[in-house]
Amino acid sequence: MNAPSALASAYIAFRDDLIDDGLLVPMGSDGLFGRGAVFESIVTALDTAIMTLGADNNPTILRFPPVISRSLIERTDYLKSFPDLLGSVHSFSGSDRDHLALIATAESGGDWAQAFTSTDVVLCPAACYPLYPMSSGQTVPDSGRIYDVVGTCFRREPSIDPARMQSFRQHEQVFIGGESEAMAFRNRWLERGSGLLRQLGLPVEAVIANDPFFGRVGKMLASSQRDQALKWEMVVPICSEEWPTAIASTNAHQDHFGAPFDIRRPNGSAAHSACIGFGLERCTLALLRHHGLDPHLWPSEVRAILWS
Amino acid sequence: MNAPSALASAYIAFRDDLIDDGLLVPMGSDGLFGRGAVFESIVTALDTAIMTLGADNNPTILRFPPVISRSLIERTDYLKSFPDLLGSVHSFSGSDRDHLALIATAESGGDWAQAFTSTDVVLCPAACYPLYPMSSGQTVPDSGRIYDVVGTCFRREPSIDPARMQSFRQHEQVFIGGESEAMAFRNRWLERGSGLLRQLGLPVEAVIANDPFFGRVGKMLASSQRDQALKWEMVVPICSEEWPTAIASTNAHQDHFGAPFDIRRPNGSAAHSACIGFGLERCTLALLRHHGLDPHLWPSEVRAILWS
Repeated sequence: MNAPSALASAYIAFRDDLIDDGLLVPMGSDGLFGRGAVFESIVTALDTAIMTLGADNNPTILRFPPVISRSLIERTDYLKSFPDLLGSVHSFSGSDRDHLALIATAESGGDWAQAFTSTDVVLCPAACYPLYPMSSGQTVPDSGRIYDVVGTCFRREPSIDPARMQSFRQHEQVFIGGESEAMAFRNRWLERGSGLLRQLGLPVEAVIANDPFFGRVGKMLASSQRDQALKWEMVVPICSEEWPTAIASTNAHQDHFGAPFDIRRPNGSAAHSACIGFGLERCTLALLRHHGLDPHLWPSEVRAILWS
Repeated sequence: MNAPSALASAYIAFRDDLIDDGLLVPMGSDGLFGRGAVFESIVTALDTAIMTLGADNNPTILRFPPVISRSLIERTDYLKSFPDLLGSVHSFSGSDRDHLALIATAESGGDWAQAFTSTDVVLCPAACYPLYPMSSGQTVPDSGRIYDVVGTCFRREPSIDPARMQSFRQHEQVFIGGESEAMAFRNRWLERGSGLLRQLGLPVEAVIANDPFFGRVGKMLASSQRDQALKWEMVVPICSEEWPTAIASTNAHQDHFGAPFDIRRPNGSAAHSACIGFGLERCTLALLRHHGLDPHLWPSEVRAILWS
């Protein structure tokens, strides 16, 4: 499993098994899949289990569309940190004559989308982003505001690894409030999240991680994040023991969102935030890998959690 | 309600009511909304009711992500018919140096997305699009293949009308097969769909409709579609009696998809297709408008259908 070609073979073999069984449907681009009824029933069950697990926090429940306003992303440092992963939505606003030229370009096999210009929306890169503007300019209690959110995220990283989709769903619980409270939230969820995944029969390990920051400066950002142990991933082998897949993560953002969105603590300083995020497709793939492609044959204790 | 300003006031008043009650959350761009727990519980219940209604057709159940491959859209005539509605996804693939320039442009308030180039994906404009490549090059029986699909669609038409979202979900049942069978499917669903919506207490009317074809040529396409009565909409007043909103539609596509995707009938001719599509957010808004903003107070016969 060391050589890249062995890893690539493992990706393709698992992907083909999933497709053969109708769990996933290929869509002509790497990292894009339709989902069959069985795959989707697992996602729905996981979604409910995660919501139930966090219900004692009495979160505000919100669901968001896959696009967000461009100005939202401009208020964060997403463009500095992950420019290569962002999907920007462009559209056509030309005349009848421009339209004829557009069609001629398309018919000659040219890049017709060059005639498209940027809109005021982009694809949402992480489920929690739309939350921060909601508290902008406000003071939140140190005990925090807590949200349960699900969103479809887009990251431009086409891959043959079925666990690295371009479009995927995240179920997050998010805290916005005091500093020590944010850290306690993250720590508690690291335990809780790992606990749920272990109960589901997954050999999960918690490891210190970093976000995939872009370029040369990104390397420094990544090591600073690791040195402070801000982000932890819950990893499980899916296609490789050596390169396990992060299926959930908990992250202490410090005042990374509180500061730019002007969310304040009662003492006037910027609010801290933290989140736990479950990758719904990745958790589903891990379950299918470890318990087999037919959920009816999964261990009864796993089925009891998901379909009790 | 005749003057545009009265209509605009009605849109804004309803939108503000929905926001005040936490049913929708504004996201800083017209036609983009987060959804609260109550709104989402109605969407989920509708989704289940629609699936149950069509279960006797034993459809193949598929769920799709909000992005599809660019080549798929190029095989259809979407660019000819609706260029202005399409969302094209662009990304950044530059160097460290390009990245510095990108950030400088963003910091000066410039159009940084000009440095983004078209990817191999676009936003999905209608839930059924990903289905047609699945049967490409195949012969389907005249009795047809039937699919139950849900997808998040994007149409670039920012509006203050809360029922005209840029990002919204469609639940469709789709038929691909013989010509008369496709027409029978459409006719049966026109009755069934209207029936369900009437049972839900909505004063729905079925009307001949046309798609919003672009430009001068589009006007001819629209009248041809109307002359043949191919598309029917189920309309309900939401913000206006005079301008009711289409909350569902049935459409006979003829061989509009069968021909370009090379889907054949046993006699060798191109397959026909037809669909019923429910706009999940629009149906939800119609219910909220007609029965009030608190589903606990809705008529018991409506609640029984949705939450029995």
